[in-house]
Amino acid sequence: MEDKTRFERGLEKLAEVDGAVGDQVIQNLKEIAPDLGRFIIEFAFGDIYTRPTLDLKQRECITLASLATQGGTENQLRVHINGALNVGLTPEEIAETFIQCVPYVGFPRVLNAVAVAKEVFKKRELIS
Amino acid sequence: MEDKTRFERGLEKLAEVDGAVGDQVIQNLKEIAPDLGRFIIEFAFGDIYTRPTLDLKQRECITLASLATQGGTENQLRVHINGALNVGLTPEEIAETFIQCVPYVGFPRVLNAVAVAKEVFKKRELIS
Amino acid sequence: MEDKTRFERGLEKLAEVDGAVGDQVIQNLKEIAPDLGRFIIEFAFGDIYTRPTLDLKQRECITLASLATQGGTENQLRVHINGALNVGLTPEEIAETFIQCVPYVGFPRVLNAVAVAKEVFKKRELIS
Amino acid sequence: MEDKTRFERGLEKLAEVDGAVGDQVIQNLKEIAPDLGRFIIEFAFGDIYTRPTLDLKQRECITLASLATQGGTENQLRVHINGALNVGLTPEEIAETFIQCVPYVGFPRVLNAVAVAKEVFKKRELIS
Amino acid sequence: MEDKTRFERGLEKLAEVDGAVGDQVIQNLKEIAPDLGRFIIEFAFGDIYTRPTLDLKQRECITLASLATQGGTENQLRVHINGALNVGLTPEEIAETFIQCVPYVGFPRVLNAVAVAKEVFKKRELIS
Amino acid sequence: MEDKTRFERGLEKLAEVDGAVGDQVIQNLKEIAPDLGRFIIEFAFGDIYTRPTLDLKQRECITLASLATQGGTENQLRVHINGALNVGLTPEEIAETFIQCVPYVGFPRVLNAVAVAKEVFKKRELIS
Repeated sequence: MEDKTRFERGLEKLAEVDGAVGDQVIQNLKEIAPDLGRFIIEFAFGDIYTRPTLDLKQRECITLASLATQGGTENQLRVHINGALNVGLTPEEIAETFIQCVPYVGFPRVLNAVAVAKEVFKKRELIS
Repeated sequence: MEDKTRFERGLEKLAEVDGAVGDQVIQNLKEIAPDLGRFIIEFAFGDIYTRPTLDLKQRECITLASLATQGGTENQLRVHINGALNVGLTPEEIAETFIQCVPYVGFPRVLNAVAVAKEVFKKRELIS
Repeated sequence: MEDKTRFERGLEKLAEVDGAVGDQVIQNLKEIAPDLGRFIIEFAFGDIYTRPTLDLKQRECITLASLATQGGTENQLRVHINGALNVGLTPEEIAETFIQCVPYVGFPRVLNAVAVAKEVFKKRELIS
Repeated sequence: MEDKTRFERGLEKLAEVDGAVGDQVIQNLKEIAPDLGRFIIEFAFGDIYTRPTLDLKQRECITLASLATQGGTENQLRVHINGALNVGLTPEEIAETFIQCVPYVGFPRVLNAVAVAKEVFKKRELIS
Repeated sequence: MEDKTRFERGLEKLAEVDGAVGDQVIQNLKEIAPDLGRFIIEFAFGDIYTRPTLDLKQRECITLASLATQGGTENQLRVHINGALNVGLTPEEIAETFIQCVPYVGFPRVLNAVAVAKEVFKKRELIS
Repeated sequence: MEDKTRFERGLEKLAEVDGAVGDQVIQNLKEIAPDLGRFIIEFAFGDIYTRPTLDLKQRECITLASLATQGGTENQLRVHINGALNVGLTPEEIAETFIQCVPYVGFPRVLNAVAVAKEVFKKRELIS
C-alpha cells in the first residue's frame, strides 16, 4: 500500500512536471525494462521531487544544471526544459541557468544544452 | 578602463560570494598562472555573476549542482558551499540541492559533495 | 509497512554486501542528510540489489566497473571492493574487472581503481 | 611473428564477440587511421579479451557497465550489446546490467543505454 | 572601448581559426542567448587564443584533445577539426592527436572523434 | 621476440619521458596487476609514444590536456607534468596548455591541474 502511494505520488508529480512527455519516457520502457519506469516514478518523482525545502522551480533548475554538466543527455534535457517551463521557469531563466554553468563546465556542454532549449522554445513558439 | 571595471566588478562580487576563501584561490595562482586568477575575477565573477535574471542564491545553487555532477571538484565545492552560505542559502537547502541530483548522477557524486558540505558546516559550527 | 519492508530488506542486503563499512556510510549521513542514507538502503539495496536475473557477484562486478569508469569515486570503490570480496569475488577477479575496462576508459581510471584495490587487499592481508 | 599472433588472436576474438559489426568498425578506420583499427584488434581483443580469470560473458557485462557509465558511447554500446548477445548473455541480463548501474550513475545514462538495447533487441527480433 | 577591443580581437581570431563555421555558431545563439556568443568571442577568442607562449596549431591540438576526451562534443569537434586544418595542422597530425589520447581515455572517445574527423576530411576532399 | 621488442621499446620511451617516476608506477603494480604495468609499457609507450607525426613535446602536451579534462587524474598529471618538463616543455608552456583548456572544460578542472603543476614546479625548484 505504501509502495502504491509512492507510485501514485510519483505519477502525480511526473504529470505535474513533465506532462505527456514524461509519460512517453515511461511507455518507451514497457517492453524492455518496465521496472526502470517504475523506479523513475517511485524514486525520482515519488521520493525526491515531493520533498520540502526546495520548490519545483528550484528542483528543475538544479536538474537542468546537472544534465547540462553531464553531457550526452540531450533526451533528458528535452524532457526537463519542457518540465522547467511547465512549473513556471521563463525561457530567460532557463537560458541563464545554462550560462551560469559556463565558468564551471566550459562552452561546449552549455552550447549543447542551449541548442536543445532553442529547439524546445521554438516548438512551444516562445521564440520565433 | 572598461577592463578595469570588469576586474573591479568581479573582485567586488567575488568578495561578496566567496569572501576570504575566494581571495585565497586567486593568491594561490600568483606564482604559476596569475592571468588565470584574473580570468576568474573578470569572466566568472565580473561577467557572469553580475548578470540579471537569476539572483546570487540561485546562481550558487546552480554552481553546486554543476560541481557535484562533475566530480573531482572537492576544492571548488568547499569554496562554493561557503559561498552559498554567504549569500543566504541554508544548510538544509544546500543538502537538498545535492539530494535533488541523486536521480540524475547517482549516489557516489552526491555522497562526495555531501561529505564536503558536512566538513564546511562543522567548521562554521552549523552542525555539531 | 511496505516501506519498512523495503528498508529492512535493504538493510539486510547492505549488511550482506558491505558489512560494517556500509553501515558507517549511513552513520556519516545522520547529521547532515539522514534521508540520503535511507534512500541508499531502500532504493539501492532494497529495490536494486534484491532483484533476480543477476547474482551478487555479478552485481558487484558491474558496480566496480561503473565506479572505476566514473572516476573520483575512491571512497565508493573502497566500500565496494570490500563488498566484492564479501560476496565471494577473488582478488584476481576484482583486478581483472578493472583490467577489462582499460580499452574503454584508458589507463588512468584503471590505475586509480587498482590503487584502491591494492590498499584494501593489503588491509585484509590478501597480498603482502 | 608474435605481433602477427596478437593480431590473429585478436581478429579471432573480435569475430567471436562482435561478428560482422566489429569488422565494420575496423573497415571504417581504414582510410583515416588504420593503425587505430589494428590497436583495437591487437590490444583490446588480442591482449585483453583473451585473458583468463573472467569469461566472455563477464567481460561483455563489464564493458556494457563501463560504456553506459561513460555516456556518449551509443555507437560502442550498439556493437557491444550485439556482442553480449553473441557470447550468450540474455536480453534480461543485459537490461539488468544497466539497471544495476542506476544507483551509481543515475537514470539518464541508464535510459540512454537501454534505448540502444531496445533498438538492438528489436532488430534481432528479440522483442516485438 | 577596451571591451570593444576584446570583442574585435576575438572576432578577428575566430575568423582566422574557425572561418564561416565559427560565425554560424554565434549566429545560432542570437535568438536565445546572444551574450553567450559574445562571451565566446571576447573570452575564448579575445582573451585566450590571442595569448603568447603557444601558437594556434598548438592551441587547436590541445582543444581537440580536450574535446575528444570530454565526449558528447561532436558539434564542437566539427568546428575545431576544421579550425585545426585552417591554422595548418595536417589530417595526419589531427588523427595522431586523437590516437595519442587512446591510452588516457580508451578507444570509444577516440573512435567518436575520428569519425567526425573522417566526415570533415571527406567534405574538404582531403580523403576520398 | 616482437613482444620483447615492444616491451623494450616501451621501457626505453618510458625512461625517456617519465624517468624514475614512471618506473615507480610500474613497480607499484607488481603485486596486484603486473600485466597492467606491462600493457602500459608495451601499448602506451611501445606502440603509441614511439609513433611518428608528432614529437614527444606535442604528445605530452596532448596528454596533459586529456588528463586535465578528465579530472580525478592528479596522480597521472604529476607523472606527466614531470614528463613534459623532461622532454623539454617549459613551465610556461605547461601552464598555458591548461589555460587553453578553460573555455572547453571550465575553471575547476584547470585549477586542479594547475595546482599539481605548482607542486611539481616547486619540487623541481622551477618556481619559488
